[in-house]
Amino acid sequence: MPIRFEDVLAARRCLAPHLPTTPLRSYRELDEATGVRVLVKHENHLPTNAFKARNTMSFLTALPAEQRARGVVAATRGNHGAGLAWAGARLGVPVTICVPHGNNPEKNAAIRGHGAELVEAGRDYDEAVTVAERLVRERGLVMAHSTNDANVVAGAATLSVEICEQAEQLDAIVVAVGGGSQAVGAIVATRALRPGVRVYGVQARNASAIHDSWHGGARVTTERADTFADGLATRATYDLTWPALREGLAGFVAVTEAELGAAVRLMIRATHNLVEGAGAAGLAGLVQLREQLAGQTVAVVLSGANIDAPTLSRVLAGEL
Amino acid sequence: MPIRFEDVLAARRCLAPHLPTTPLRSYRELDEATGVRVLVKHENHLPTNAFKARNTMSFLTALPAEQRARGVVAATRGNHGAGLAWAGARLGVPVTICVPHGNNPEKNAAIRGHGAELVEAGRDYDEAVTVAERLVRERGLVMAHSTNDANVVAGAATLSVEICEQAEQLDAIVVAVGGGSQAVGAIVATRALRPGVRVYGVQARNASAIHDSWHGGARVTTERADTFADGLATRATYDLTWPALREGLAGFVAVTEAELGAAVRLMIRATHNLVEGAGAAGLAGLVQLREQLAGQTVAVVLSGANIDAPTLSRVLAGEL
Repeated sequence: MPIRFEDVLAARRCLAPHLPTTPLRSYRELDEATGVRVLVKHENHLPTNAFKARNTMSFLTALPAEQRARGVVAATRGNHGAGLAWAGARLGVPVTICVPHGNNPEKNAAIRGHGAELVEAGRDYDEAVTVAERLVRERGLVMAHSTNDANVVAGAATLSVEICEQAEQLDAIVVAVGGGSQAVGAIVATRALRPGVRVYGVQARNASAIHDSWHGGARVTTERADTFADGLATRATYDLTWPALREGLAGFVAVTEAELGAAVRLMIRATHNLVEGAGAAGLAGLVQLREQLAGQTVAVVLSGANIDAPTLSRVLAGEL
Repeated sequence: MPIRFEDVLAARRCLAPHLPTTPLRSYRELDEATGVRVLVKHENHLPTNAFKARNTMSFLTALPAEQRARGVVAATRGNHGAGLAWAGARLGVPVTICVPHGNNPEKNAAIRGHGAELVEAGRDYDEAVTVAERLVRERGLVMAHSTNDANVVAGAATLSVEICEQAEQLDAIVVAVGGGSQAVGAIVATRALRPGVRVYGVQARNASAIHDSWHGGARVTTERADTFADGLATRATYDLTWPALREGLAGFVAVTEAELGAAVRLMIRATHNLVEGAGAAGLAGLVQLREQLAGQTVAVVLSGANIDAPTLSRVLAGEL
């Protein structure tokens, strides 16, 4: 494993003054719809409405004072940027976020809303990364990667520690995989606290590099990542998380855009909490696995709620 | 005032084991849209996604053991019923909820989801009340009124106590008025903790009995209460809350269906929290009062999130 359980406990101590424990709740309608006893981890209740608040606060609190003073930069299209902006504002760390031209305006507003400097440049995510790397060289900023950092993964693991403590019964956790911090965090937490619990990964079929690598046994990249669940839109495996995912996941499914859309609708109808595509991916994966998981108690992470209004309208209309 | 501040503190002690403190958050986009520094009280984070969890838990914890054992009944179309069902399940109190035929299926599912017995009878709310009164006589159940009960109002007041403690600066609170528990609670809490803070009430123009009574100086009832914000769909003043509202509110506005719809859209876009019509009424009222409140720090209560999917679609499409 890329992190030890002690690292997770250390991250938890760093997060405690800044983030509340989020609720783990059950909804009869979800149980009836799936045949599984579903526990929903409400990461949408965190500041920035996403679990990324854990990851980014864990990253910044672990940063040496000298690096904090220089400020941090990240390339992102969404929740990583908002989380970093929020955590930076709380800690007094200057934050610069690079997004590509045409990035979602609601995400940009959230990033700016927390006081970060927003740099719109480049045609796509990869070009935004290039801009961020230039700012590291030119301005001496510290790069804040969304996944390839042990403190980020340790931050994500704290949500699974809470699940393990909150759930009376627990057979499995089904989590979305963008870069893999949630899933690796769940593997590390359950091995320490609930050794029998299985962890399943979920990716979008349209952005399935890690899923395909897991099933094929060798790391692959994909040309495209065309999913409305932008938190899942990755095209490659990550050095830090890949070995742990390969070894630690009990299963790995890929869900279609229609399955993601149906999961968003089901989550909203059953829980009346807003959810974005990636935030409903755990539930979509659980639905695909429902025969295998029938009658078991399974946690899913409502990992983010930052869906934009036009996408929400399309999902509700059944167009996604 | 119909309750004393000591009653609120007592209610708070009763609620503490069951309900978390909800966050009070600011969003730059709301500030920019209104010219007011807006603080959002996230009652949507409570179990049942509505402040009614406070009211109903306060009611049930104050009930003598003998009456708890008999069980409680209420006529409702929504959040009061879900709150009562949730609180009853936690305390082991049998709950029966009477709803009219054709009541919103998502609300019915939520009530059943918490294990309450749902009785669908009668053509409208008033007939459901008649059914509930019959069950009091026939089964010896205890009636749980949504507003006319001191413990209910004391429960609602706890949210304003939290606001007073959480807000560094605070000039006013703008709250929706269905029966008036939130508003009277805000008046009692602010007088004790923040005497300079003004409390404004908001009703739907299509269900404006209390608003009209306040401006006219005499209690009136209305024939209809046709608002998509079903939490505001009341047609009369209430004995317990009316005198306090008449005396304690700094102002009282009525908002159109279009203003409620716009406030739902603004709240979702700016905060990415789901909100129902009544839950956005405070914001709608603030928008109407924005010139008067310009530059001030004003709290609004996101009091509930239980909007059904068809209504949400219509709001997002601008049809409401």
